[in-house]
Amino acid sequence: MSRYSIGVDLGGTNLRAAAVDETGKMLDKVAVSTQTAVEAVISNIVKSIETLRGRLGAADLAGVGVGVPGFIRMKEGVVVGAANLPELNHYPIRQEIERRLGTRVILENDANAAALGEKWIGAGRDVDDLVLVTLGTGIGGGIIVGGRILHGNIGMAGELGHMTVVPNGNPCGCGNAGCLEKHASATAISVMARLIGLGPDLTSEDVFNLAKGGDDRAKTVFRSMGEALGIALATLVNIFNFPLYLLSGGPLPAWDYFAPDMLAEVKRRSFTYRNAPTRIEPATLGNEAGLYGAAYLPFETAQPRS
Amino acid sequence: MSRYSIGVDLGGTNLRAAAVDETGKMLDKVAVSTQTAVEAVISNIVKSIETLRGRLGAADLAGVGVGVPGFIRMKEGVVVGAANLPELNHYPIRQEIERRLGTRVILENDANAAALGEKWIGAGRDVDDLVLVTLGTGIGGGIIVGGRILHGNIGMAGELGHMTVVPNGNPCGCGNAGCLEKHASATAISVMARLIGLGPDLTSEDVFNLAKGGDDRAKTVFRSMGEALGIALATLVNIFNFPLYLLSGGPLPAWDYFAPDMLAEVKRRSFTYRNAPTRIEPATLGNEAGLYGAAYLPFETAQPRS
Repeated sequence: MSRYSIGVDLGGTNLRAAAVDETGKMLDKVAVSTQTAVEAVISNIVKSIETLRGRLGAADLAGVGVGVPGFIRMKEGVVVGAANLPELNHYPIRQEIERRLGTRVILENDANAAALGEKWIGAGRDVDDLVLVTLGTGIGGGIIVGGRILHGNIGMAGELGHMTVVPNGNPCGCGNAGCLEKHASATAISVMARLIGLGPDLTSEDVFNLAKGGDDRAKTVFRSMGEALGIALATLVNIFNFPLYLLSGGPLPAWDYFAPDMLAEVKRRSFTYRNAPTRIEPATLGNEAGLYGAAYLPFETAQPRS
Repeated sequence: MSRYSIGVDLGGTNLRAAAVDETGKMLDKVAVSTQTAVEAVISNIVKSIETLRGRLGAADLAGVGVGVPGFIRMKEGVVVGAANLPELNHYPIRQEIERRLGTRVILENDANAAALGEKWIGAGRDVDDLVLVTLGTGIGGGIIVGGRILHGNIGMAGELGHMTVVPNGNPCGCGNAGCLEKHASATAISVMARLIGLGPDLTSEDVFNLAKGGDDRAKTVFRSMGEALGIALATLVNIFNFPLYLLSGGPLPAWDYFAPDMLAEVKRRSFTYRNAPTRIEPATLGNEAGLYGAAYLPFETAQPRS
């Protein structure tokens, strides 16, 4: 039996846990529905980990990584601003999981974990520096510098969904107006579809299907989304000059409808993009990226800094 | 005699070189006017270094660092996009200086060097991570992560002047519209003063003096500049969550006229700014920052990565 770690991904719908070995091979996996009450969340995380540890043996367990939505204060191991799981805010989640499991746990923002997963065994395996933009209900981000997650001062780095792309654009719950996530998330796609008269309750998938069917208004929605993404990506390219920028999330199947405008904006707005080898591509691990990334956290910590 | 290095700063007006010891003490300094012909530039750089090396002795010289404007392709040691010194573009500047001096030279973008200088012995000495925004004819930037310059893939990281702050704003020579430097540089201050009818040929200092004298239109110019800076800084804070963001350059004396709007924008646009300790402050080394930073380059390279 080789060494393995356990990664947990606390998503909006499912709580998933996986045992992964050092080569990135998934050995086992469990999933339950996500609860909103904090006691149920903690209890389900602990139970999932115990289930996998029971099956694979405690002796070879290298560690546990947990990816959760929201800003993570790394030092304290608490979450701030988890919009979908408000009960988790300021709760000592890491400490409580560690207490019940009797083992050390690494807490990480879910988008950061996904970026690390893509770096480890996904689309970013051949680079040391990348940015991942996750398109969902909101927009998250993870930045990998020299193979490691960029945390910033207290762990709040990578909040790419709140980059300003339209100075007086759609208002955002964060207090800003014109945040990227109000112009390019799955939610924004639905809202734009409504504004343009496509229908009051369409999902981003519905809008995608309309676009595929030839609906010009649906295509316009994706063009707007692509432009907003392009403005943000051009700024990221100008700031980082990284070799790779990845996109993931629900709207990715609509790539052909938003990517042309997105890439045209980046090309126009970034001298660096036009002069340095830069790839902007779909991520490849889908919604497993966060799970793999969470599982990699204990291995990452064990390695020396280059 | 202690070990020292030589830093060179190739500015728009002056070419300066300084001998600096490992504690950051400046031992000697020379300056000549900047020439535009490439042979004169190289020759003056080499002569300045030889002068200092002659005075202080070759035995204790730890190395030479040279800060130049433009994008640097680190691997090749060439400059691309040096708008003020077009003859330098694609010329093998590092190789040629090394050949004439018979010693290794580290080439660096001037804003990156300035950021490193501020980290070493300036406003950033107590932090490991910072962003410097340099306000001049254009706007440059330097990003320090873990005490080191962030270079990106080929050395073009930190081009903060070309972040998009107004999607359909003033056109920029880089191909974009609404670049930060077209809305917040010293040049932009002059242009806004002209647009608002203050006068056709005012420098940013003239506009500052008018604002000090109570001119409301001059104050409006700095408020616009502050807003543009605030949009960019909010995005930087959301991306990096660093403890410190520094501003330097000619318009800094007008701080009281642009900073209130700048900080109000950052506060409104960045949840991270409101929730994580974040300082946005004037840099302290003035136009010596690049000189100190260039001198630090050989010392930095000699140190192990943390």
